[in-house]
Amino acid sequence: MSRTDGRTPDQLRPITITRDWLAHAEGSVLVEFGDTKVLCAASVQDNVPRWRKGSGLGWVTAEYSMLPRATNTRNDRESVKGRIGGRTHEISRLIGRSLRPCLDLKALGENSIVLDCDVLQADGGTRTAAITGAYVALADAVAWMRKRKMCPGDPLVGSVSAVSVGVIGGVPMLDLCYTEDVSAHTDMNVVMTGSGAFVEVQGTAEGAPFDRGTLDQLLDLAVSGCSRLAELQREALGS
Amino acid sequence: MSRTDGRTPDQLRPITITRDWLAHAEGSVLVEFGDTKVLCAASVQDNVPRWRKGSGLGWVTAEYSMLPRATNTRNDRESVKGRIGGRTHEISRLIGRSLRPCLDLKALGENSIVLDCDVLQADGGTRTAAITGAYVALADAVAWMRKRKMCPGDPLVGSVSAVSVGVIGGVPMLDLCYTEDVSAHTDMNVVMTGSGAFVEVQGTAEGAPFDRGTLDQLLDLAVSGCSRLAELQREALGS
Amino acid sequence: MSRTDGRTPDQLRPITITRDWLAHAEGSVLVEFGDTKVLCAASVQDNVPRWRKGSGLGWVTAEYSMLPRATNTRNDRESVKGRIGGRTHEISRLIGRSLRPCLDLKALGENSIVLDCDVLQADGGTRTAAITGAYVALADAVAWMRKRKMCPGDPLVGSVSAVSVGVIGGVPMLDLCYTEDVSAHTDMNVVMTGSGAFVEVQGTAEGAPFDRGTLDQLLDLAVSGCSRLAELQREALGS
Amino acid sequence: MSRTDGRTPDQLRPITITRDWLAHAEGSVLVEFGDTKVLCAASVQDNVPRWRKGSGLGWVTAEYSMLPRATNTRNDRESVKGRIGGRTHEISRLIGRSLRPCLDLKALGENSIVLDCDVLQADGGTRTAAITGAYVALADAVAWMRKRKMCPGDPLVGSVSAVSVGVIGGVPMLDLCYTEDVSAHTDMNVVMTGSGAFVEVQGTAEGAPFDRGTLDQLLDLAVSGCSRLAELQREALGS
Amino acid sequence: MSRTDGRTPDQLRPITITRDWLAHAEGSVLVEFGDTKVLCAASVQDNVPRWRKGSGLGWVTAEYSMLPRATNTRNDRESVKGRIGGRTHEISRLIGRSLRPCLDLKALGENSIVLDCDVLQADGGTRTAAITGAYVALADAVAWMRKRKMCPGDPLVGSVSAVSVGVIGGVPMLDLCYTEDVSAHTDMNVVMTGSGAFVEVQGTAEGAPFDRGTLDQLLDLAVSGCSRLAELQREALGS
Amino acid sequence: MSRTDGRTPDQLRPITITRDWLAHAEGSVLVEFGDTKVLCAASVQDNVPRWRKGSGLGWVTAEYSMLPRATNTRNDRESVKGRIGGRTHEISRLIGRSLRPCLDLKALGENSIVLDCDVLQADGGTRTAAITGAYVALADAVAWMRKRKMCPGDPLVGSVSAVSVGVIGGVPMLDLCYTEDVSAHTDMNVVMTGSGAFVEVQGTAEGAPFDRGTLDQLLDLAVSGCSRLAELQREALGS
Repeated sequence: MSRTDGRTPDQLRPITITRDWLAHAEGSVLVEFGDTKVLCAASVQDNVPRWRKGSGLGWVTAEYSMLPRATNTRNDRESVKGRIGGRTHEISRLIGRSLRPCLDLKALGENSIVLDCDVLQADGGTRTAAITGAYVALADAVAWMRKRKMCPGDPLVGSVSAVSVGVIGGVPMLDLCYTEDVSAHTDMNVVMTGSGAFVEVQGTAEGAPFDRGTLDQLLDLAVSGCSRLAELQREALGS
Repeated sequence: MSRTDGRTPDQLRPITITRDWLAHAEGSVLVEFGDTKVLCAASVQDNVPRWRKGSGLGWVTAEYSMLPRATNTRNDRESVKGRIGGRTHEISRLIGRSLRPCLDLKALGENSIVLDCDVLQADGGTRTAAITGAYVALADAVAWMRKRKMCPGDPLVGSVSAVSVGVIGGVPMLDLCYTEDVSAHTDMNVVMTGSGAFVEVQGTAEGAPFDRGTLDQLLDLAVSGCSRLAELQREALGS
Repeated sequence: MSRTDGRTPDQLRPITITRDWLAHAEGSVLVEFGDTKVLCAASVQDNVPRWRKGSGLGWVTAEYSMLPRATNTRNDRESVKGRIGGRTHEISRLIGRSLRPCLDLKALGENSIVLDCDVLQADGGTRTAAITGAYVALADAVAWMRKRKMCPGDPLVGSVSAVSVGVIGGVPMLDLCYTEDVSAHTDMNVVMTGSGAFVEVQGTAEGAPFDRGTLDQLLDLAVSGCSRLAELQREALGS
Repeated sequence: MSRTDGRTPDQLRPITITRDWLAHAEGSVLVEFGDTKVLCAASVQDNVPRWRKGSGLGWVTAEYSMLPRATNTRNDRESVKGRIGGRTHEISRLIGRSLRPCLDLKALGENSIVLDCDVLQADGGTRTAAITGAYVALADAVAWMRKRKMCPGDPLVGSVSAVSVGVIGGVPMLDLCYTEDVSAHTDMNVVMTGSGAFVEVQGTAEGAPFDRGTLDQLLDLAVSGCSRLAELQREALGS
Repeated sequence: MSRTDGRTPDQLRPITITRDWLAHAEGSVLVEFGDTKVLCAASVQDNVPRWRKGSGLGWVTAEYSMLPRATNTRNDRESVKGRIGGRTHEISRLIGRSLRPCLDLKALGENSIVLDCDVLQADGGTRTAAITGAYVALADAVAWMRKRKMCPGDPLVGSVSAVSVGVIGGVPMLDLCYTEDVSAHTDMNVVMTGSGAFVEVQGTAEGAPFDRGTLDQLLDLAVSGCSRLAELQREALGS
Repeated sequence: MSRTDGRTPDQLRPITITRDWLAHAEGSVLVEFGDTKVLCAASVQDNVPRWRKGSGLGWVTAEYSMLPRATNTRNDRESVKGRIGGRTHEISRLIGRSLRPCLDLKALGENSIVLDCDVLQADGGTRTAAITGAYVALADAVAWMRKRKMCPGDPLVGSVSAVSVGVIGGVPMLDLCYTEDVSAHTDMNVVMTGSGAFVEVQGTAEGAPFDRGTLDQLLDLAVSGCSRLAELQREALGS
């Protein structure tokens, strides 16, 4: 059972994490999982949304989007359609939720960080690449804030990375590319901390429902994939 | 460790499934999980979306919504705001995805079934109640179609039910009500088939990330809850 | 000349007014005019719209909506279409305008009451059922406020009820159901106070224009219908 | 009891009806009720909306709008706000409904006429002026069609005009200007055919509810006003 | 080479500038370039947009729109479509930008002037007619403000007018009507001050690109046209 | 008079044109004018918009957008705001208009090419960089089509490039970066063909109006800049 690109079932695609890809953002990363390229920009703002004012707590949020020609055929822009689709909403919320556990929002003070994750090219796993890259951009943005003494404490209390797993032709596999994703019977996205705990587990039976044994195998693969990604994040951050 | 309503950690709330609540819909159910009340209506249409025409396959989709005063304080209507929120989109997609494995879309022929799940009153677990009730409405709609010989085959090939589980004060618990949901550190929604396989697993660390052992305990609880719900669905359908 | 459901021309359908149908709302009523079922929820807010601040006056407003499968065939949701239709706007404005004369807005103080009228099932006369039910929910919400001493005075200074009348096959009839409404040449909605004065009169020639004599007969029918509805409201409120 | 502009209670403002105000429209009228100026354009289209295709019947619809500076203080454009307000919707629907009885839609054939009523300057009674002017534009558009033999028959089977009436300081008055409209306790818009039958009656108690006697007096005033307007329409059309 | 309406290539259409066309606006002008009729209303507001508060500077902005039947065939309303088109946006921005150089925004103080330019009838050159008319409405609005001593100084420091030029059948021509505009290979709109300087130059090759010599000829024509329009503006303002 | 980055007034910034930056698009270019980076993707579609069907002619259109953190401070996404701003519309229309003269739309046949120009990083001149890069992507897309024999003829009949010019401190300068753009009194964007003719000239007096002499100097600079850009485009295309 070989994969289209020759990988073994438990192998990640080549991963690159390029910091400081943008000149203006307080943190920015071009993250690549094989042919999937996501540009992650972290923007610091010295205020919080209205409903949070006076709480002493900061805020982190994320927006995910895809360029119209990131994919094989062109998709209409959501700005032109005048509304954001369900998938975009869902992924934006997932990214924000996944990154929040990395931060002590009290130590952040009443500041906000917005993570923009724009998919320049898509080949499967865009949401997990976005989370993995956004964490590094977030870490850089926090460092930028600390250098300027904007925060009452040290807000960065953990790290997260994410990976997709799925069952193809009966074989559980790690980090699916687009053609694999399309043919997967079960598809799962897993977000984990650098210390190996779960932040989010989202498994979906695309075709046939799956049993507990398959679920356990997929979780094993995801644990090993996230662990390797956490290592690559640490290397990228030079720590 | 007792729960606010006196239940044991592995106990469901009182569940009622009232069929034929509406006069016009081909299938309709008022489902109650304690104080959570969701009206599920299945509408049969003898056509499919444009992108599906000529495929010989049917389609199932779902729309979730909450009445403005389903909750403790009033929420603005999404029709008035002019756009559907991220949470609504996400849940609508989840319900549709969860019900699709119940059907053989080829046996359905080029017909559509739309499941409208409107929350009349909310007390936690609205999305899992919606899935559980929508399945029963779907089964009634399919029976309605078969009586009229609209389908080339028998499209109903399985059943689904869903339940929420979470960790409160360190204790894994089944079927959270609203006050429990708010104080849960980890929150998981699980959708299962009547035969005990997983259709969807969505776990989120609201506060602290969770370890593999906790994940396993939550899955055990969900398995037992869904099994009981499947029994109640069978009873309601008189089979 | 008998009606589809055997009523005489001047007879209302069976009317039921169920109070406290919802757990959270300050006032809530499920009102039924035959098969028409409208859920009316009154929400109290301790503030007023911005343009009213500092006036010392309260505010009452209403929002009408229909569940997608309230009707014989499914209608698309206005939240999905991204805009509220003309009919919805018009009825929401009518309900708010009709209820305002029941209240002394000075005695209400700078508080607001929002009446949500959601049609769960439609069989003609949904707007008049909504007004009739919303008044009872409003009365309950005002009682709730007075118990908490939120108002500077007693804001409830009157009551309103509403009914439809129309000419079918040349015969003026009271409280039209859907099939009657569709075949009516003239259609009129009348809102009256409990003391027998007019709040709103909206008559439309659907087919042939109507003369002064017909108008007078329709008004007579409406007067008797509203008088009976006012009685039922008083009974429901136990006064 | 004299009016701000010296009129008697049963007197219309000076009315002018200028035909062919626009070069392109098949029928166009600038109608003035005192300082209220509405530009009415009738556009002929040789097709009908999709839901009407193959019915053999024509269609008439109307759109009402106000220029931002038609009023004393500037209003934001609805195109800029991105949605049409409730009042605009309501009046557009009223105008369309009022004009439809003038036409035999079968004799019109599968053609449409759109009536655009744009208020250039507002001083009360814009909707009734719009209906009165739109009828004349409609008559011109039908004449234009008949000259080109577009219709299977003669579609113009009647005429309509409209006027507002109200109670100010206890006195029923005809054709209210803006300052009168604002101080009226009861406000009624009446649409009548040229032959003296009612097409639409919309009465609203702005302040105190009104009794049957007042309603009758207002209807008397409206009948005389519409009769005079029908005369002016006939003069304008030179028939 | 004669033009459809018999003009010479360097001749403007008949121009009329009618001041005080509206009763309510602080300045209002009906400007006509042949059959093109634009109603320009200047609205004074004693405040500035939020981002300008505390700056001591005033603000001028413009909104351009076309009535649906200003043109030969009816266009859908942008309010009904729920969004403003690219062309409308572009012209609104051009008008605002063109008028700003007429004003010393410091001398205006923290007041705003909104110019609404509504095309009642279109026959080419609507944007240039709008700018030319809007200047006169603006001058009247400033005079109105100065009479009320609303401004710290004299804000009117210059004038602007605008005209279109184009190449038709190889011949450069001034002030194109609609049929000329459609057949022009090159189309240019030029905005100039009353003292003969350029405020905006927008030239577009509709068909074949144009050379420097043609550009110079078109600019010469525009200079003479704008100079004549400035004269007509001065006459209209009686200065 | 030296520029912030040491350039002479008539010198372009370093320009790079990287072809095939994306894997999926039929033509794609990352174009850089100094720190301004625009990703241009050309998408081929084997059909035309509905209004063009049966004409035998092809179509070219463009959409311009900026990533939220392309700029110094973060801008809200237009997809989130639910509407496209005036500036975006204006630039999208300019790009489409500028590229159309490069093509013989009859030789293109009934095919469409969409040019997506997404600004990844902004430092002034984004629209002129977009036009310059989009031409190269367009040329590649046409080559892709010709290889597949999709076109009845050779559609590429010319080339375009574009550059900004402006007056800063009285000195006319070529290719303004952001800080220069902000302080420019006059700002002009010029689009020219590879053979030296004008396609679009857009000059705006940001502060003081400008005279004919300045206009001529700016045009001279633009001519030389576009000529150099055309050379770079030819080099990039290896022709």
